[in-house]
Amino acid sequence: MQRRSFLKKASLGAVAGTATVAAPVFAQDAPTLNWRLASSFPKVLDTLFGASEQFAKQISDMSGGKFNIRTFPAGEIVPPLAVLDAVQKNTIEMGHSPAYYYFGKDPILCFDTAVPFGLNARQMNGWMYDGDGMKLMRDVFKAYDVVNFPMGNTGCQMGGWFRNEIKTVADLKGLKFRTAGFAGEVLSRLGVVPQQLAAGDIYPALEKGTLDAVEFVGPYDDQKFGFAKVAKHYYYPGWWEGGAQVSLYVNAGEYQKLPESYKAMIDVASRSTNVTLLARYDNRNAAALKNLIGQGAVLHQFPRPVLEASWDAATLVYAEMSAKDPKFKAVHDNYMGYRDAQVPWFRVAEGSYDGFVSSMLQKKK
Amino acid sequence: MQRRSFLKKASLGAVAGTATVAAPVFAQDAPTLNWRLASSFPKVLDTLFGASEQFAKQISDMSGGKFNIRTFPAGEIVPPLAVLDAVQKNTIEMGHSPAYYYFGKDPILCFDTAVPFGLNARQMNGWMYDGDGMKLMRDVFKAYDVVNFPMGNTGCQMGGWFRNEIKTVADLKGLKFRTAGFAGEVLSRLGVVPQQLAAGDIYPALEKGTLDAVEFVGPYDDQKFGFAKVAKHYYYPGWWEGGAQVSLYVNAGEYQKLPESYKAMIDVASRSTNVTLLARYDNRNAAALKNLIGQGAVLHQFPRPVLEASWDAATLVYAEMSAKDPKFKAVHDNYMGYRDAQVPWFRVAEGSYDGFVSSMLQKKK
Repeated sequence: MQRRSFLKKASLGAVAGTATVAAPVFAQDAPTLNWRLASSFPKVLDTLFGASEQFAKQISDMSGGKFNIRTFPAGEIVPPLAVLDAVQKNTIEMGHSPAYYYFGKDPILCFDTAVPFGLNARQMNGWMYDGDGMKLMRDVFKAYDVVNFPMGNTGCQMGGWFRNEIKTVADLKGLKFRTAGFAGEVLSRLGVVPQQLAAGDIYPALEKGTLDAVEFVGPYDDQKFGFAKVAKHYYYPGWWEGGAQVSLYVNAGEYQKLPESYKAMIDVASRSTNVTLLARYDNRNAAALKNLIGQGAVLHQFPRPVLEASWDAATLVYAEMSAKDPKFKAVHDNYMGYRDAQVPWFRVAEGSYDGFVSSMLQKKK
Repeated sequence: MQRRSFLKKASLGAVAGTATVAAPVFAQDAPTLNWRLASSFPKVLDTLFGASEQFAKQISDMSGGKFNIRTFPAGEIVPPLAVLDAVQKNTIEMGHSPAYYYFGKDPILCFDTAVPFGLNARQMNGWMYDGDGMKLMRDVFKAYDVVNFPMGNTGCQMGGWFRNEIKTVADLKGLKFRTAGFAGEVLSRLGVVPQQLAAGDIYPALEKGTLDAVEFVGPYDDQKFGFAKVAKHYYYPGWWEGGAQVSLYVNAGEYQKLPESYKAMIDVASRSTNVTLLARYDNRNAAALKNLIGQGAVLHQFPRPVLEASWDAATLVYAEMSAKDPKFKAVHDNYMGYRDAQVPWFRVAEGSYDGFVSSMLQKKK
């Protein structure tokens, strides 16, 4: 805290300094700032943690080195699940986190990341940037004194690694599955026993059989953990995150004090980081999946009856939450109405194009 | 030209001015600049022309009003197909244009926008931002004294409006189709007679029957032209542009003179505009398609034999161009190798997720 208050004073000094030399307008508007950003992701997830590093570099470069943001991986100054709290309390000015980590505070936050059978990555961008999504989620985050910006998407994730095959809905009964939040809530209706484990404990638990399955991210991140050796059945799709968005959180009070030029830089750099992170995942997942299959991973699609039972369980959970909380219902109805309007269009040009190219490449082989 | 040289002098004056007051480092690095950007798109295409307006506003906001870019719609100061030339000659500092407009100069430029059965929008971003795409396309644009930045994508376009149904490959023979560039080259192998018409001439030509069909963009843009009234058969997918990228061109000499902070702003704002433009199309196409169907448009997928014949014709054209030009072959092989590696991954999580959600929504109806 000492250090931070020192930095704050230093920044204020710099502002006063530029003002006294009758510098041009922009210089007056551009104080030297030293901010801190805590990520919910460890360094080993280089795409996700790298997104906050990229963002900080862009802001520094654009401001000519005056707006400095120091990034910290998960746990270094703030525990991964406490990032939202820390930004709210202004312990740090900024955080980078997926809002579904805070399902326990309020399930409504999950609409900022992903919910079961929700929007894919492009639809999420459509909802946030040109639909009602940004306005609705800004309203939600207001209660946490946070201004939020979409800043990354993983694309559709994988369903995870299973020691044994899932052939019927009954195979989910008693399954000790490392998952959490909204997915855990829905899966528990089908008999799954959700488990919370720190990343380092997953592999040994799978090996010993105290854990039956784990869902993580997608091929690029998953390959770093060697799950294929102890739970080779690799299922898709991760229907609880069809396009998981990660957001930048800025403390609302600190944000309001920024000059307009820095506010603009945050908005623009967050959008830039959003598209770049998805591009990195898309680019790297393809080769990683190939590697994983080479290492013994066996790809399976969840059987249709399992997907349909999950859809029904999700529908039930949505109805219960909507009945309990009108705010949840309002965001849910807007979000799902958006999905229902978008999916028929995505089926037309995009869907038929992707399907045709895919079928021709399969024929070529 | 007079006016421009005046603006240049004014800018230099401003730089000198800030230097003399011993302003802080950033102010010295941030000259006042007044640049011009010519778009290849008219104002009526508010998403595409709007992208350059958004970009200019972001740069102005981030620079505190010092880096000003005035945007001009197609034809106002530069004809739509002369934007690349104008940036090369430094008549204007910036342009916003799809490189496949310059097929006549060199077909290799089309890899910066879209080619038949090429990458979809997300794959294009993967190739450009995290694969070899940016390096390869920068090399291509070097010959035009241009530094290029991806700055927008339409997503997969529609196949266009046809007066009569296309039931077999034979129906393409003699078809007077408004299209151009790479698509025109491939379609001509199937007997199509490509036509170049200015936007304003399309509707009357379709009405009179001097034109049989037209391809334009997608539902949101197409609905502004009333094609449904004279050519109601609305085909998909637009296999010649599965994800059409539009790029920002910056005159290389002018770019090199910029301070590093402005260079960073251009890079970051172009990425931001890239994701925002696609989000706008995705958000607006769904409702527009519904409206068009209400107005009498009849949706058809191109019959599979027509798509397969087009695939074969494209393969032939790629082989011919590759045989003629090793530079074309090098970019083609990298781009198509990328597609071939990406598509099997996109089929797994994304494809199965989109397919399942789509099928459940159809069942719900």
